[in-house]
Amino acid sequence: MERDAVLFSNEAFYRAFADRDFTAMDGLWSRRHPVACIHPGWSPIAGRDQVMASWRGILSNPQSPAVICRRPQAYMQGDSAFVICFEEVDGSFLIATNYFTRETGGWKMTHHQAGPVPAPEGDDETVTSPIH
Amino acid sequence: MERDAVLFSNEAFYRAFADRDFTAMDGLWSRRHPVACIHPGWSPIAGRDQVMASWRGILSNPQSPAVICRRPQAYMQGDSAFVICFEEVDGSFLIATNYFTRETGGWKMTHHQAGPVPAPEGDDETVTSPIH
Repeated sequence: MERDAVLFSNEAFYRAFADRDFTAMDGLWSRRHPVACIHPGWSPIAGRDQVMASWRGILSNPQSPAVICRRPQAYMQGDSAFVICFEEVDGSFLIATNYFTRETGGWKMTHHQAGPVPAPEGDDETVTSPIH
Repeated sequence: MERDAVLFSNEAFYRAFADRDFTAMDGLWSRRHPVACIHPGWSPIAGRDQVMASWRGILSNPQSPAVICRRPQAYMQGDSAFVICFEEVDGSFLIATNYFTRETGGWKMTHHQAGPVPAPEGDDETVTSPIH
């Protein structure tokens, strides 16, 4: 199911983040469509080279915090999709949207935006499945 | 050009916001695809009814600030697109991404996320055109 494939790519994004795996991260981002990225508190970054340079810096920085994806929910619209999820960072939370496009080789990222959010309510273990 | 049509819909979103025009806002959001919205500092809102209820509350609240869109840039990916822009609110800035899908009747919104950002650099009047 395409929704599962989108959520798989979203998981792969957070796995690459957790593993500090720049090669995996680089492979997840689209080369066919224009990409952008809004890291929390940063100005927006436009263009693949600039976006990947930002990830190279983040993933090579030992001070970068661990990020755990919570409650991903996928929203499908044909050959594009976005996933909204909480990001748990050192016990506090961000909210992120990750945007994907369907390409040969799977769903590739074209945009990531994360920003502050109140802590989610309820039990994380019981609310992890997509609702749409 | 489709890019212009996307930027037109993005402008219409901020015009509806400025005019406190709920009917116009309602007409801008997709009825064919699932929608979501992340207002700055809020938990994410899922589903059209809930998203539109949030806009009804914001647009009917005389305390809601004026929002001016600055430097919109459109990123195209087939029948979907997203626009990144600064939102000037009472002299401070947010960064927003607005997601669109091409439908009969134009480019309709499926998602909006806004969060804090440093003030943009440079002269606003000279940097308003899309670069992609």
